[in-house]
Amino acid sequence: MPPQRALGVAVVGTGKMGADHVRRLHDVVSGARVTAVVDIEAERAKTLADAIEGCTAYTEPAAAMAAQDVDAVLIASPGPAHEAALLEALGRDLPVLCEKPLTPDAASALRVLAAEQRLGHRRVQVGFMRRYDTEYMKLKRLLDGGELGRALMLHHRHRNLSMPPWFTNEMLINDSVVHEMDVTRWLLDQEITAVTVHKPAPTSHAPAGMNDPQFVLLETELGALVDVEIFGHCGYGYQVQAEAVCERGTVRIGDEHGPRLSTDGRWGGRITPDYVERFEDAYDREVQSWVDATRRGEIAGPSVWDGYAAAAVCEAGVLSQREGRRVEVELIERPAFYR
Amino acid sequence: MPPQRALGVAVVGTGKMGADHVRRLHDVVSGARVTAVVDIEAERAKTLADAIEGCTAYTEPAAAMAAQDVDAVLIASPGPAHEAALLEALGRDLPVLCEKPLTPDAASALRVLAAEQRLGHRRVQVGFMRRYDTEYMKLKRLLDGGELGRALMLHHRHRNLSMPPWFTNEMLINDSVVHEMDVTRWLLDQEITAVTVHKPAPTSHAPAGMNDPQFVLLETELGALVDVEIFGHCGYGYQVQAEAVCERGTVRIGDEHGPRLSTDGRWGGRITPDYVERFEDAYDREVQSWVDATRRGEIAGPSVWDGYAAAAVCEAGVLSQREGRRVEVELIERPAFYR
Amino acid sequence: MPPQRALGVAVVGTGKMGADHVRRLHDVVSGARVTAVVDIEAERAKTLADAIEGCTAYTEPAAAMAAQDVDAVLIASPGPAHEAALLEALGRDLPVLCEKPLTPDAASALRVLAAEQRLGHRRVQVGFMRRYDTEYMKLKRLLDGGELGRALMLHHRHRNLSMPPWFTNEMLINDSVVHEMDVTRWLLDQEITAVTVHKPAPTSHAPAGMNDPQFVLLETELGALVDVEIFGHCGYGYQVQAEAVCERGTVRIGDEHGPRLSTDGRWGGRITPDYVERFEDAYDREVQSWVDATRRGEIAGPSVWDGYAAAAVCEAGVLSQREGRRVEVELIERPAFYR
Amino acid sequence: MPPQRALGVAVVGTGKMGADHVRRLHDVVSGARVTAVVDIEAERAKTLADAIEGCTAYTEPAAAMAAQDVDAVLIASPGPAHEAALLEALGRDLPVLCEKPLTPDAASALRVLAAEQRLGHRRVQVGFMRRYDTEYMKLKRLLDGGELGRALMLHHRHRNLSMPPWFTNEMLINDSVVHEMDVTRWLLDQEITAVTVHKPAPTSHAPAGMNDPQFVLLETELGALVDVEIFGHCGYGYQVQAEAVCERGTVRIGDEHGPRLSTDGRWGGRITPDYVERFEDAYDREVQSWVDATRRGEIAGPSVWDGYAAAAVCEAGVLSQREGRRVEVELIERPAFYR
Repeated sequence: MPPQRALGVAVVGTGKMGADHVRRLHDVVSGARVTAVVDIEAERAKTLADAIEGCTAYTEPAAAMAAQDVDAVLIASPGPAHEAALLEALGRDLPVLCEKPLTPDAASALRVLAAEQRLGHRRVQVGFMRRYDTEYMKLKRLLDGGELGRALMLHHRHRNLSMPPWFTNEMLINDSVVHEMDVTRWLLDQEITAVTVHKPAPTSHAPAGMNDPQFVLLETELGALVDVEIFGHCGYGYQVQAEAVCERGTVRIGDEHGPRLSTDGRWGGRITPDYVERFEDAYDREVQSWVDATRRGEIAGPSVWDGYAAAAVCEAGVLSQREGRRVEVELIERPAFYR
Repeated sequence: MPPQRALGVAVVGTGKMGADHVRRLHDVVSGARVTAVVDIEAERAKTLADAIEGCTAYTEPAAAMAAQDVDAVLIASPGPAHEAALLEALGRDLPVLCEKPLTPDAASALRVLAAEQRLGHRRVQVGFMRRYDTEYMKLKRLLDGGELGRALMLHHRHRNLSMPPWFTNEMLINDSVVHEMDVTRWLLDQEITAVTVHKPAPTSHAPAGMNDPQFVLLETELGALVDVEIFGHCGYGYQVQAEAVCERGTVRIGDEHGPRLSTDGRWGGRITPDYVERFEDAYDREVQSWVDATRRGEIAGPSVWDGYAAAAVCEAGVLSQREGRRVEVELIERPAFYR
Repeated sequence: MPPQRALGVAVVGTGKMGADHVRRLHDVVSGARVTAVVDIEAERAKTLADAIEGCTAYTEPAAAMAAQDVDAVLIASPGPAHEAALLEALGRDLPVLCEKPLTPDAASALRVLAAEQRLGHRRVQVGFMRRYDTEYMKLKRLLDGGELGRALMLHHRHRNLSMPPWFTNEMLINDSVVHEMDVTRWLLDQEITAVTVHKPAPTSHAPAGMNDPQFVLLETELGALVDVEIFGHCGYGYQVQAEAVCERGTVRIGDEHGPRLSTDGRWGGRITPDYVERFEDAYDREVQSWVDATRRGEIAGPSVWDGYAAAAVCEAGVLSQREGRRVEVELIERPAFYR
Repeated sequence: MPPQRALGVAVVGTGKMGADHVRRLHDVVSGARVTAVVDIEAERAKTLADAIEGCTAYTEPAAAMAAQDVDAVLIASPGPAHEAALLEALGRDLPVLCEKPLTPDAASALRVLAAEQRLGHRRVQVGFMRRYDTEYMKLKRLLDGGELGRALMLHHRHRNLSMPPWFTNEMLINDSVVHEMDVTRWLLDQEITAVTVHKPAPTSHAPAGMNDPQFVLLETELGALVDVEIFGHCGYGYQVQAEAVCERGTVRIGDEHGPRLSTDGRWGGRITPDYVERFEDAYDREVQSWVDATRRGEIAGPSVWDGYAAAAVCEAGVLSQREGRRVEVELIERPAFYR
C-alpha cells in the first residue's frame, strides 16, 4: 500500500496512554494517520483533534468507526469500556489494537472471543507490548531456537519506583503481574494452570494495607515453575528482568547497561525511572507492527485468546492473594480458531 | 504539517545505502514519502520506483529536483558525485541530507561551503549518524552537563569483522576513522589541530600491503588528546567503543550487552556483525529527525562546516599515514555563518 | 603467639576434603602445622603423615587428640562420625573446626549443643565457609550497614555442572541447599520458620527419579521470604548467586566476571566448573581465620547453634520435599549461651 | 621443608611497604618467619622486632644478613639503598625478594646484573607484583595459550585517586608507568624498543607544573604498539585496566565488579581507593610464591634482567617526557644467563 493511502486510525480514549498513541501514530509510526479521536470528554477530544489536520473529534466510538476515513481502531479507553468498543469494531469488521486488559474479567473476554469467532477471522490484537521489547524478543528467539533445550523455570523481577496512591493489592496482579503472566505464556508457549501468591512482610514505603512486595508462583501445563517478584515501591527506579533456566543453559535479560561511569568512588550507571522510558521502543514497535500488518491485510500479535487467558490467570491470582492458597486456573478449551 | 502533506523526498543514488534509505523513508519514518529515485543505472532506479506508488525514476539528479513533488533531497550517491548534487540542490534552495563524506576532499567541501553561504541560510545536513546513536547522545549529554568536568582524553575503539577486498589504507582514514574524527569534534566542541597515524605490525588476516590495525592520535585546539584504534579485520564482529577521561570521572560507551547467557562453561552474549545492525536505530533516528526538522522549516544536525572540517582532518590523517609523521590540520577561519 | 609455636592441628578424616585441608594448613595458612592425621584407613593416614615432618598418623580420633603436639582439631570425616569426634574434643577442651554438617540430624546436634554448654565456653566452629567468601562478606556488610534498609526477600541461585551418580533428592537439601539456609540465617540474622519445596518438571539430564531442579521457599521469623533455586545438573558450570531485595535498594552477588573476551562473534568469559575453584579463597580465609582466632584464645564463626539450626531446617526441607507441602521448622529455644 | 624449619627472613626497610611485608610474612604467608628487621631508624626497627618472638632489630643490612637465623632477604628500603643491599646479599648467596625498582637507574642495575652472573646462579626476584594478580595471570595464560593469536596492541589504563604532594612528572614514569612497562614485557615476551610520552592539557586537580594525565606509547621489538594512560589525580578511585588486541580476539581485564547495587536511580558498585586494596591478593601471592620457591631451593618470578630492562625503558620515558620526542631504548645484549 502506498504512502498516500496511510491507514486512517480512530483512537478511542485520550487519557495518558491514548494521547501518547496519538503522538506515536502522528510523529513516529510510518504509514498511518489519526483521522478520529474519541473521548467522552468532548473538549479533550476536540483539543487533540484540532492539532491534527484531517482529524475529527467524537464522543462515541460507534460514530467514529462509522466514518469514511476510519480504517482501523486503537482502543485506549479504561478497561470497562473495552468490551462495547470491541464488539462495535468487530461488528464493522474493523482491525483493532486494544490496550491491555482486553476486558476486565474472563467472562467479558469470553464474549469478545465469541464475537470474533462469529466474524470468522481474527481482527483484534491485544496490547501486550513486552512481546515487542528487543530483549524479550531475543529471549523468545533463543528459547524457540532450541539451543538451550526446554525451559524448566522462569524468574521474573518487576520493580517500580513507586505506585500512585490509589493502587491496590488487586492491581498489583491485574495491572502489573499480568505482564509476566502474558510473557510467560508467550515465551513458553504453554498455558498457566495454577497461581500462588506469597506476601512477605511489606516495605515500610508502601501505603498501610498494601502488601508490597509480593511473590507469585505460576505453574504451567508442562510443569515449568515460574516466579514473579512484584515490588511496587522499590524506591530506586523501574526494573524489569527475566531469567530462563533451561536444560542446557540459563539466560537473563533486563540488566541495566548504557554509559558506564566511574566517578566518586563508584562505577555504574542510571536506571530508567518508569515504563514509558523503559518500553518506549516496544510501544513504537508494537504500533508500527500493527499498522504494517493491517495495511497488508494481516493480523498478528497477541490475540483475543491471549487476552482471555491473561484475564483468567489474573482472576486466579487475585483469589490466591485474597485467600492465601494455591488456586488453579479455569480455562475453556482452546478453540481451533485460535491455534 | 499534516500527515497528508508528507515530505516528498528524492533519493539520489540507489546503491546499498541509498536503497536502505528508500526503505527507511517508506517503511520506518513518519511524515515522508519517496517521490523520486535517481541513479545513472536507469534500470535499477526504475525497479525501485515501480515498487512505490507515486515514485518516479530519474537518471539525473537535476531532473528529479525539478519535479513538483520533490520537497527535499537525500544524497546517497558515491562521494565524487556529491558536489554537483549539492550545488544543484542549493541552487534550488532544497533541504538536503547528504551521506558522508560531504565531498571527497577539503577543496570541494569549501566550494559547497561557499555556495551555502551565498544562499544565505543553512540547507544541508551531513550524514554523520553516530551523533544519533543513543549511547553517543547520552555521552554527549554527560559531557555537556558538566558534572564530570572538562574532557582531557578520549579513547576510541573501532573494529570491523573484516573489510571488502578493495579497501585501502586511505579508506581506513577516510571511511572509518572519519566517524571518530566527527564525534570527537562534536563531543568536545573543539577543532582537531593535528593527526599522527601509527602503524603497528599488521594482523596476518589483512591483505598484503594493508596496515591493519592502525592507531591514530588526534590533538584538539584546547589540548585534549584523542586516540583511535581502527582495526579492519578483527575477525569477531563490529565493535565501536568510546571512553571519555574527564577531570572528575570517566565514562565508557559501547560495551556489548543484551541477553546474558550462561552455557557451555561460558557467560556472555552476541556481538553485532556489522554497522547496519549496530547503528540501525541511529540511521532511523537521523532520518526521522531530518524529516521532522525539514517539515518544521528548520535545519539541525551536522553542517557543511562539519563536513569540511572532517575532510580537512582526513587529509592530514592520510598524509600522516603516508609519511609516518605528525601532520597539522589546516582549516580556514570558521565563518560566523556556521557558529 | 610466635611463629615458632605454630598451632598443632589434628585433621580427622583424610578424604577429598580432609586432604585438601591438610594441604591448606601446610602450604597456605600462616601459623599452623599439621601434627596429626586420622583415618580409619591406616594406610591412607600414614602416607599423608609421612609427607609432613612432625606429623603422626592415627586411626582413632581420641588417640590423636591425646597427643602432646595436638592443640586443635579439624574434623573432616563423614557426617555420621562427627558427633563422637566432637564430644571427644569437647571432653578435652580442644578448639574444633568441624566441616558441615555439624551432625547428620537435629537430635544429634542437640547433644553436641548440650556438651558444649556443659563445658561452659564455646569451642566449636562449624564449616559454613560461604560466610568467608568475599562477595558474601560484602553483602553482609551492606545489609548490616543499614543503608539499604530492611531486607524483604532473598533470591538464591545454586547451580552445579552435574552431581555424582549417588546423589539423592535428600542430598540436594542436606548437602546443597543447606548452604543457602545458613547464609540466609546469617545475612538476615533471623531464624527460618518454614520450608516449602517445589518440584518443577525435571531436566532430562538428571538421573531417573531425581527431581532436578527444585525451588525452595524459606520463611523467616520476621516475615522475609527467601527462594532458592537448586539445580544439580545445569550442565554449564558452578554458579552461586544471591540477590537481596531491601526497602531502599537491591544488591546482587555472584555474577561472573574476570577477563572479558571478544572473539568469534561473542563477548564474555569463563564460568568456574566447581566449588573448589569458586570458593577456594573462602576455604583459605575460613581456616586462616580459625587458626588466628584459636591462637589468640578466641572463638568466632558459625557456632554449634548454627549447626543445629541448619540441621533442623534441613529436616523440615526433606519432609516438605517428600510430602509436597509447607513444613514448619521446630527449634528449641535459643540458649542464652549462644546469643 | 617441614613447618618447623620456617624460612627465616630479614626485612630490610620498615617503612609503609616494609612494615606491610613484615605483617604479611607473620600473619598471612605459610612457611616463613621474620627473624630480622633492618632500618636506619633504630627505634622503628626495635619496636617492630619486639612485637615478634625471635626477631632481632638491626640498623645495618649486612649485620642482619650475617645472622644465623636469616635464610633470605626481603628488600623494601628506598630505591637508592637497593644496590648495596643486593650486592651484600649476593655476596652471601642469600635469596632475595627486592621491591621495585631493582635500582634507580640502568647503570646501577647493570652492576647488580654483573654480580649475579658472577655468582653463577640466580638469587634475586624483583617485586613486580602485578604478575601475581589473578586477572593479569589469566590474561597472560590466554595470550600464551595462543587461541587469540598474536597480540598486536595493548591498551593500559592506570588511574589513581590522587598523588602525594611530592610526586613529580618523573615519578609518574618511574613509579607508576613502570608497572605497565614490566607487564608489557612479560605479557608479550618482547623487549620495548622506543617510548613516546604525550602530555595533554592537564587536569585542574593536579599540582601546578605537573602534567597529569600523560599518555605513553611503547613500541616493542616485534612491532606491537602499546599505549598507557597514566592519570595521577583521577579523583574517583584506583583503576588499573588492560586490553589486549589480538589477531583473533580482544580481551580486557580490570573492570570493576563485586556486589551490584541498584539504589537511588543508579546501578553499580564500589571502586577500590588504592593499590593496597586492589593488589592485596597479588602481594600475598607474590610473597607466598617467593617463600615456597625459596624453600624448595628454586628461583622464579621477575629477574634482575627484568629490573634492568624496566630501568632502561623508564630512562627513555623520562627523556621523552622532558624533550617531547620519541626516544629509543638502549639495552645491552641479553646474557644467555637470563634467557
